[in-house]
Amino acid sequence: MTEDYLYFGSDYLEGAHERVLERLIEVNRQPAAGYGSDSHSERAYDLIRQACDCPHATVHFFVGGTQTNATVIRALLRPYQGVLAPNTGHINVHEAGAIELGGHKVLPLPSHEGKLTAQAVEDWVTTFYADANHVHSVYPGMVYVSQPTELGTLYSLAELEALSAVCRWHQLPLFIDGARLAYALASPSNDVSLADLARLTDVFYIGGTKCGTLLGEAVVISNPSLLPHFFTVMKQGGAVLAKGRVLGVQFEVMFEDGFYQVIGREAVAATQAIQDCLVANGYELVDRSVTNQVFVRLPKVLVPIWSDKVQYATWELAEDYVVVRLTTAWSTRPEQVTDLCDFIAQHPAQS
Amino acid sequence: MTEDYLYFGSDYLEGAHERVLERLIEVNRQPAAGYGSDSHSERAYDLIRQACDCPHATVHFFVGGTQTNATVIRALLRPYQGVLAPNTGHINVHEAGAIELGGHKVLPLPSHEGKLTAQAVEDWVTTFYADANHVHSVYPGMVYVSQPTELGTLYSLAELEALSAVCRWHQLPLFIDGARLAYALASPSNDVSLADLARLTDVFYIGGTKCGTLLGEAVVISNPSLLPHFFTVMKQGGAVLAKGRVLGVQFEVMFEDGFYQVIGREAVAATQAIQDCLVANGYELVDRSVTNQVFVRLPKVLVPIWSDKVQYATWELAEDYVVVRLTTAWSTRPEQVTDLCDFIAQHPAQS
Amino acid sequence: MTEDYLYFGSDYLEGAHERVLERLIEVNRQPAAGYGSDSHSERAYDLIRQACDCPHATVHFFVGGTQTNATVIRALLRPYQGVLAPNTGHINVHEAGAIELGGHKVLPLPSHEGKLTAQAVEDWVTTFYADANHVHSVYPGMVYVSQPTELGTLYSLAELEALSAVCRWHQLPLFIDGARLAYALASPSNDVSLADLARLTDVFYIGGTKCGTLLGEAVVISNPSLLPHFFTVMKQGGAVLAKGRVLGVQFEVMFEDGFYQVIGREAVAATQAIQDCLVANGYELVDRSVTNQVFVRLPKVLVPIWSDKVQYATWELAEDYVVVRLTTAWSTRPEQVTDLCDFIAQHPAQS
Amino acid sequence: MTEDYLYFGSDYLEGAHERVLERLIEVNRQPAAGYGSDSHSERAYDLIRQACDCPHATVHFFVGGTQTNATVIRALLRPYQGVLAPNTGHINVHEAGAIELGGHKVLPLPSHEGKLTAQAVEDWVTTFYADANHVHSVYPGMVYVSQPTELGTLYSLAELEALSAVCRWHQLPLFIDGARLAYALASPSNDVSLADLARLTDVFYIGGTKCGTLLGEAVVISNPSLLPHFFTVMKQGGAVLAKGRVLGVQFEVMFEDGFYQVIGREAVAATQAIQDCLVANGYELVDRSVTNQVFVRLPKVLVPIWSDKVQYATWELAEDYVVVRLTTAWSTRPEQVTDLCDFIAQHPAQS
Repeated sequence: MTEDYLYFGSDYLEGAHERVLERLIEVNRQPAAGYGSDSHSERAYDLIRQACDCPHATVHFFVGGTQTNATVIRALLRPYQGVLAPNTGHINVHEAGAIELGGHKVLPLPSHEGKLTAQAVEDWVTTFYADANHVHSVYPGMVYVSQPTELGTLYSLAELEALSAVCRWHQLPLFIDGARLAYALASPSNDVSLADLARLTDVFYIGGTKCGTLLGEAVVISNPSLLPHFFTVMKQGGAVLAKGRVLGVQFEVMFEDGFYQVIGREAVAATQAIQDCLVANGYELVDRSVTNQVFVRLPKVLVPIWSDKVQYATWELAEDYVVVRLTTAWSTRPEQVTDLCDFIAQHPAQS
Repeated sequence: MTEDYLYFGSDYLEGAHERVLERLIEVNRQPAAGYGSDSHSERAYDLIRQACDCPHATVHFFVGGTQTNATVIRALLRPYQGVLAPNTGHINVHEAGAIELGGHKVLPLPSHEGKLTAQAVEDWVTTFYADANHVHSVYPGMVYVSQPTELGTLYSLAELEALSAVCRWHQLPLFIDGARLAYALASPSNDVSLADLARLTDVFYIGGTKCGTLLGEAVVISNPSLLPHFFTVMKQGGAVLAKGRVLGVQFEVMFEDGFYQVIGREAVAATQAIQDCLVANGYELVDRSVTNQVFVRLPKVLVPIWSDKVQYATWELAEDYVVVRLTTAWSTRPEQVTDLCDFIAQHPAQS
Repeated sequence: MTEDYLYFGSDYLEGAHERVLERLIEVNRQPAAGYGSDSHSERAYDLIRQACDCPHATVHFFVGGTQTNATVIRALLRPYQGVLAPNTGHINVHEAGAIELGGHKVLPLPSHEGKLTAQAVEDWVTTFYADANHVHSVYPGMVYVSQPTELGTLYSLAELEALSAVCRWHQLPLFIDGARLAYALASPSNDVSLADLARLTDVFYIGGTKCGTLLGEAVVISNPSLLPHFFTVMKQGGAVLAKGRVLGVQFEVMFEDGFYQVIGREAVAATQAIQDCLVANGYELVDRSVTNQVFVRLPKVLVPIWSDKVQYATWELAEDYVVVRLTTAWSTRPEQVTDLCDFIAQHPAQS
Repeated sequence: MTEDYLYFGSDYLEGAHERVLERLIEVNRQPAAGYGSDSHSERAYDLIRQACDCPHATVHFFVGGTQTNATVIRALLRPYQGVLAPNTGHINVHEAGAIELGGHKVLPLPSHEGKLTAQAVEDWVTTFYADANHVHSVYPGMVYVSQPTELGTLYSLAELEALSAVCRWHQLPLFIDGARLAYALASPSNDVSLADLARLTDVFYIGGTKCGTLLGEAVVISNPSLLPHFFTVMKQGGAVLAKGRVLGVQFEVMFEDGFYQVIGREAVAATQAIQDCLVANGYELVDRSVTNQVFVRLPKVLVPIWSDKVQYATWELAEDYVVVRLTTAWSTRPEQVTDLCDFIAQHPAQS
């Protein structure tokens, strides 16, 4: 790893935004109630409710995404139910069986560009109930999707409205994983607001870890009647911090003055610049990204040169190329983007 | 709540020790690998191994105690086994069924002053196997105790050696919950070192949340062969942080220059002063505490006066008195102790 | 084991009542629908509903008690809840962690003669909610008791009415384990009918295995709205037989002409005779039994003589005596009782 | 449903083979030890060990397939592991989440004619470990397949040897579901003996419910060191019968004089006759079956005529036809086959 290594491997490479750190220092010695009932957490809950235009929502803070997904899903489902998810969904592949640990099956549905369509849900549910033997199978109990998706794509408002409508028709709670939500909100392509998410889902979460905090995710329960005694379900899953203030203070900062809405802007602009540069230099994008992740086909001959200089994530191995993911974040600096573009220009894909 | 309210309600009231916060700021913008494989975590693992004189141990960081207990216990037990614990043990009362969520029964044993004796374990196990029908019951699979205990008492080295010996005889892994371990290590009454813990247990954890960090607990696996693929079990339980650095940096600080060994000293001295003062003013202690928690019987007539001025935890309701817990911490300041003692002197128990 | 060994070890020693076997033979080659939807099962459901005077009840057949208890409890509870049970309850001791496998804690309450009082439930629940920290603990979610109890005692109608009332007040479903229910119904001391059970509980089960069938227990859900999609929960727990007819046919026989109400009579009469004989010969009963189990203190010097001649279950080891259980059943023959009484008379306790 | 309705809907339509019933009657009043330790069960274990040429195997009886699969899989896997299965495997589709209830993920692999190839397992495992992030995913912990498969096909000895070898190379226990094993053993196309199954697997089960008993499946653990305290795991899962004799007596009959080896012969011959007749009358088979299940494409126009006269299972709905399953069994009588063939001849597919 050389001095001038270029870090684009993930969006959790650095600590927290300085505004967050400064506030943690400022309030460090204030005595605070435990378990999320301190005044900073309470104020953060209020700010989030306001940002979501959903005054009746309840808000809870978690430390990470796997725990959030596992806890919400376990709390929503009854024993005979499973969770419908796109086959590329995080809970279906990279969570080590966290959903199954809670006793539930993930029911993977075909997806397109990481997204699940309303039609796919409708078809699956209709086929399920049409099967005379469906009582021997796991019932559909809820729907899980991500915004942005694991592939960096976005649901449009129209797509989400349709998905929400089909979920409500079938009485399936809709839960959205927003681990990278700041990069959706900051995308010029996005037309889905926090208020839309609150209106169209039953539960969703607003990612902090990948969006500027040291750690933390904020679960917004827009339909609280579905999740009685949710605090105790969290506790049972080990998802409650004694010093809940640590999360409360951070989200308080993130939701003051609409900070969360803008923190992802440079990252999204950076992926546009990087993609322009890749294309200009003969690289093939898997798909044009509108958020903070770029998926590009790296010719195999260039792998040694790239890996020597650029930190990236390997996504898929093919015969002649490797699909790699380059990720920007709130912490990405303009000079890093410039350096990456210079590197790309020096090593074009065509030869 | 008045300006000069006295906070003795818990040991997680304030943020982190300033040394911890400063280091978090210092390294904030260093890019770091995720999931506990960054250089700060790696160095912290080394420092902990050294402090425990246990070079072959593996170390993992968790965010909180419930999750730590649930994950370690789930990873150690087979389906037909349960965990033996003192009936006052945290996992038996205040963890909302976290152990049962993993499919295992907590088998509560009689305890004395919050402690489980070697003899009690021996008797239970002998009785279990003597029952001709024991194959219809949950097998003993491991032993869980806390140091200090939930009642603020300490196992002596001799007691722990005996407990460890009986566990090894019966091939029951011994797991020690050290949520408040700094206050044991700082107690003049203590004769159990970190190295003793590593030597006598199979797994134990070193508390951070209540001992000076923003959050975090360090699990030390002194017998790693018992816990293959423990990282994946952690991940499955939602116990892995993407930004593992947040925990690594904090424990790095705590284990530099033996800091963890001394951080609890003022808190332990403070409980001595408070207890002296209580006794001198006619209050009856449940038991003389040697760590950072004081349990005292508060006559019912004094409850309104105390609750107006002092934050404490209500432990048990009796006819004429209330058992309350006063807790000191690394963050307790001398003037707070002085103020509390002044208050006690003004409101003696006898009148 | 000699030719004239006397079998009083359990109530599952022999096969099925001849009426049951004959019917199984009679219908053996009739083709029948699977999974409990055959005509014999349907008729048995009806007969049971009639016997319980509960036309809206749903009925399901299980193969054994552990599975029944585990499935009903898992279906009734939400993740944050546990089941209140007398500390002597079967689910707390001899079911190998079956309830915990479903993710739930058994919350043992003090019992008297194997019974749980309405007051004990009221006190526990009141204390639970009075604890300011109760959100960190397992919530009470239902109540489990047995009729007859594991100690052979009976709840009176008044006791059951009180227990039911306190459960309804606190919205805790009441579930009664009737593994030996035929011996309650046949007891002159009993004043609780099947209709009372249906009226006062939300779910209860009628034991077959110990009461005359080859195997099988009938779950009566008097409050079906609590258990949606119960068939699928059963299937998930492996509790559904492909050839459901095997259970349906047997319960059809048991509930024709009130047969279940009378099948236990000889067994109950036999325990009275045996107890009279024991007392007359100086033996000390633990308690006078009114159903089909006798608990008696066997002086240690008599153990070799008894064990040579009588099959019994060892219940508890004391200094000078052993508590043993003698069990009668629908299959006990008068000459066996006579032989046992002769043996007792030849070996009186006093000498 | 007319008098002369033709039952080919499943292989669990009738009771038990008369030899089984007669023995149950014969031994009905013999007192027997409980929970599978009676003399009939012990003898059945011996007969099965002999039939499998595997003297060190342990044998356990279960009541049904879902419970058997769930219990064996739960006992074999550690928390971080899942079970590899063909995507058409019973545990992946029709067991209502029974595997997930135990906390484990089913990892579906592509299959061909219901079978999993050694190569498919090898590829999956290699790809899994090649993924640098595999520690975030469920580990492969065992392999599950069925003989015959859910589609009526058979693994050849060569295929099974290859599958077993790849499992052993990767230390993945191999478990075979033999719910319909009698129909494999009776097939002229079969070259896999019970001894082969014992030699090549770690655990497999011999189906009773669909092969002549009232109920029951016999688990053969050819590698007992993998499953310590298996009885208690069974008990925990509610899979132990108090009157274990009910299963022991039936399997004793099934394994006397090689009865299990031959009981499926007529059923297999019948499927040949039915397939010949179908083909002769213009029907298209999905695949030529060599066991007791026939899968045939029924033109939609013929559905009303067929369903009026023949009980069958609907397998799949297509545009112009319906795939239906016709099943024969030990209980199928020659005249039923003749009647079905007559019906087919009267209603040919071409018109």
